[in-house]
Amino acid sequence: MAGTIEQKLAAQGIVLPEPVAPVANYVGFVRSGNLLFVSGQVCNGLDGKLIAKGKLGAGVTIEQGSAAARGCAINLLAQVRIALGDLDKVVRVVRLGGFVNSAPDFLEGPKVLNGASDLMVAVFGDKGRHARTTIGVAVLPGDAAVEVEGIFEVA
Amino acid sequence: MAGTIEQKLAAQGIVLPEPVAPVANYVGFVRSGNLLFVSGQVCNGLDGKLIAKGKLGAGVTIEQGSAAARGCAINLLAQVRIALGDLDKVVRVVRLGGFVNSAPDFLEGPKVLNGASDLMVAVFGDKGRHARTTIGVAVLPGDAAVEVEGIFEVA
Amino acid sequence: MAGTIEQKLAAQGIVLPEPVAPVANYVGFVRSGNLLFVSGQVCNGLDGKLIAKGKLGAGVTIEQGSAAARGCAINLLAQVRIALGDLDKVVRVVRLGGFVNSAPDFLEGPKVLNGASDLMVAVFGDKGRHARTTIGVAVLPGDAAVEVEGIFEVA
Repeated sequence: MAGTIEQKLAAQGIVLPEPVAPVANYVGFVRSGNLLFVSGQVCNGLDGKLIAKGKLGAGVTIEQGSAAARGCAINLLAQVRIALGDLDKVVRVVRLGGFVNSAPDFLEGPKVLNGASDLMVAVFGDKGRHARTTIGVAVLPGDAAVEVEGIFEVA
Repeated sequence: MAGTIEQKLAAQGIVLPEPVAPVANYVGFVRSGNLLFVSGQVCNGLDGKLIAKGKLGAGVTIEQGSAAARGCAINLLAQVRIALGDLDKVVRVVRLGGFVNSAPDFLEGPKVLNGASDLMVAVFGDKGRHARTTIGVAVLPGDAAVEVEGIFEVA
Repeated sequence: MAGTIEQKLAAQGIVLPEPVAPVANYVGFVRSGNLLFVSGQVCNGLDGKLIAKGKLGAGVTIEQGSAAARGCAINLLAQVRIALGDLDKVVRVVRLGGFVNSAPDFLEGPKVLNGASDLMVAVFGDKGRHARTTIGVAVLPGDAAVEVEGIFEVA
């Protein structure tokens, strides 16, 4: 029987990808004690292509960026599911670090990151409310518009 | 009776703001075990306006940036006080992450961040000495000159 | 008698520097419980000079950047040795945060950071596999090409 969180995902039509292990000497997540550290996820969609590519403030809109941030959050959850086997074991989303590929005059990073924050609360409710840091970076891997990393408390 | 740290704040004329909860699906802090993760704080002063706006190396001086970093640190402590009720419960300032809104040729980020580090040691003494990472970012929310996030060990 | 990890370092010709304490109100590392947080390390070599200076995509090559990232990882290990006395006490490399001083069109940050990730696995084996976040930043302290911070689980 599917767990509570899996049911919420299904009810909202959220499909988690099967994450591909990094082709390098790092991994998607590491657990230490009750904390699960998940590697920075760029905004790949289910088709493996970037949901938004390029810089906010120079071609990518806030709406596109927010959708990209939501995609990053979905990719984080895919890693968490692999790590824990069951998303119901998430006790709390502790922290999201949000990186917005930004033109030097793009000031609305938090609106972009809300796409990730909203997804976490839609899935986990109050357990999904997290500490957050948003910064505008010079560039991201593969010219992804957004990257998000996460720390989760687990049972 | 005011705690030791509150007395130190008063003696140094440091007034903590009453933090406003973020108007979004994230929060100012999350505690997990003995670690308190505080969201990135931009350099708002007590009047709610940015202490310094724009880029270091392109209009904002190191002195202004350092004052801004100090303001970020004060905002972190305001969050910690809300979280714990009493700043005396801070066992250690574990880590500060410092983000300096930088022109691409501004090399003195650590001097800017010292404004935050000095504040922590002025308030907590040796317990205030922390691990630190300083980077120069393309831009920050609202064009803040500095943003600082923190991890605190709590009793 | 040298520990296992010290023997591995010696066998691979890796020499750790004697880290200089920061000349400011922060420190090279802080331990909290079983987690050791190590401050961001720029890419100084054993001679104290930057292994690579400037921006990837604007003068610094991927090969130079990767060597710089390896140097950052060596500097992290030097801090860990000071913190623990013995690198054999490292249970796991939990997370590396990698910051690449990047021109706004440099998309290959992960290839640069592999220099740090490869070093960790060369030294610690599977315990060296870590969660990782790579971002391209506007600038770094002293115009270092790469900076890396780390979280380690310790016995």
